[in-house]
Amino acid sequence: MILVKIGGGESIDIPAIVRDLAKVTAPFLVVHGANALRDDLAQRLGIEVKTLTSLSGVSSVESTPELIDLMMMTYSGLKNKRIVELFQQNGVNAVGLTGIDGGLITGERNSGVKTRIGAKTVLVRDLSGKPRIVNVDLLTLLLSNGYRPIITVPILDAERVAVNTENDDVVALIHSALPAETIVHFIEAPGFMEDPSDSSSLIQRMTKSELESRLEIASGRIKRKLMAIVKLFEHGAPRVIIADGRVERPLERALAGEGTVIGASNE
Amino acid sequence: MILVKIGGGESIDIPAIVRDLAKVTAPFLVVHGANALRDDLAQRLGIEVKTLTSLSGVSSVESTPELIDLMMMTYSGLKNKRIVELFQQNGVNAVGLTGIDGGLITGERNSGVKTRIGAKTVLVRDLSGKPRIVNVDLLTLLLSNGYRPIITVPILDAERVAVNTENDDVVALIHSALPAETIVHFIEAPGFMEDPSDSSSLIQRMTKSELESRLEIASGRIKRKLMAIVKLFEHGAPRVIIADGRVERPLERALAGEGTVIGASNE
Repeated sequence: MILVKIGGGESIDIPAIVRDLAKVTAPFLVVHGANALRDDLAQRLGIEVKTLTSLSGVSSVESTPELIDLMMMTYSGLKNKRIVELFQQNGVNAVGLTGIDGGLITGERNSGVKTRIGAKTVLVRDLSGKPRIVNVDLLTLLLSNGYRPIITVPILDAERVAVNTENDDVVALIHSALPAETIVHFIEAPGFMEDPSDSSSLIQRMTKSELESRLEIASGRIKRKLMAIVKLFEHGAPRVIIADGRVERPLERALAGEGTVIGASNE
Repeated sequence: MILVKIGGGESIDIPAIVRDLAKVTAPFLVVHGANALRDDLAQRLGIEVKTLTSLSGVSSVESTPELIDLMMMTYSGLKNKRIVELFQQNGVNAVGLTGIDGGLITGERNSGVKTRIGAKTVLVRDLSGKPRIVNVDLLTLLLSNGYRPIITVPILDAERVAVNTENDDVVALIHSALPAETIVHFIEAPGFMEDPSDSSSLIQRMTKSELESRLEIASGRIKRKLMAIVKLFEHGAPRVIIADGRVERPLERALAGEGTVIGASNE
């Protein structure tokens, strides 16, 4: 199986990814974001997308009820359905699902972010959580009948409330239950780079232990993303590719080894 | 099986309908609208929802690409997912689907509406169509595994393009493939009334042939809705109830005979 994560950036070429996936004979699953679309809609509606900054300096979006509404409109609605439509046009019987459909993904509500408001430290608890349980039966039911699940947020918390979560963690959870041979993360960069501003610093090959060393010195959002990738190696020995989602034939190139290829060991 | 259509009006009490459906032991399917939400979002975004008026005086929304985007945000996104969330909170394993997911509903693109623009008669062809084929396998797969499909627009046309359609026609198509014993249409009125402005003119019982006589004298949108209801009697001998979606225990009341009950014959 191939597990594909498509980042929610504006410049990702989704039609190109879909065309490539339509040629894949192995079963596959897609998890996608839509942050650019969400922020665009928020701006058009005059809604401020607030961020919470923890005491340790990590920023995340504050998932208010209004933000969950926005995510349902953009991630679950417009973005998910346009991707499903593209797959249908390319002969793939895609089914769009959020984490709440069929109880697909249940999570644990975050306990809150300690943040500084003026001189005070306050705990802000929003509608976000960590994905913990995936309804594998639903995924297997669909996959074994020829459907291709196209998955996005929100997910359910323990009280069955729709909450936001990190798509990287959703990918890790799905892989833990339904291990994939290959996991491709499409981002708006050539891959994982030593210096994000210098594309010649692309790291082409990395072992799991090299990734773990990098994790130790990373911080903030990058650390969270790396942790989700390290988790992938707890199940099977997948090939993980961080690939450019902005190029022609993005999946074909990624599978041919372009981008950053992370393996369980140096082979 | 029970087939429930929930109109997209603002005053329909969806939580009350969901609570009632959670008590139903028979399998059920829901088809829902979201026109009030769509129009509200259009207004907030400063988008004009245009209507096309045919030469015979029937008005319909002009389904431009921008309107399909709006429908994906509201029907497929916010409304569908909030309904699924409510079902999940009430212990029902609902799965939200549009007509494009899993190729659920394929339709025939409308040939266009002849409309008058100034002194000229022009044919305007928009992104709308009539639903013709339903993927019964997908519905059966989900229903037989304990899932409850919550269905909304868009659907696919023959070229796999997302198009708008009438939910009443979707209900009729689903019933033709998967006949329901009971079909409930929740609307923002006590039922079918002789005089829409006079609630005492509610027609409590109607036979299929009485309905057909009314069809002959009806026009416009009402005629289209009645035609979709008449079609329901081509398959099986369902009990069709046009019920008030704004009251307490709306389904319980409808099943007890409140509203307009239409039967194949006078029994």
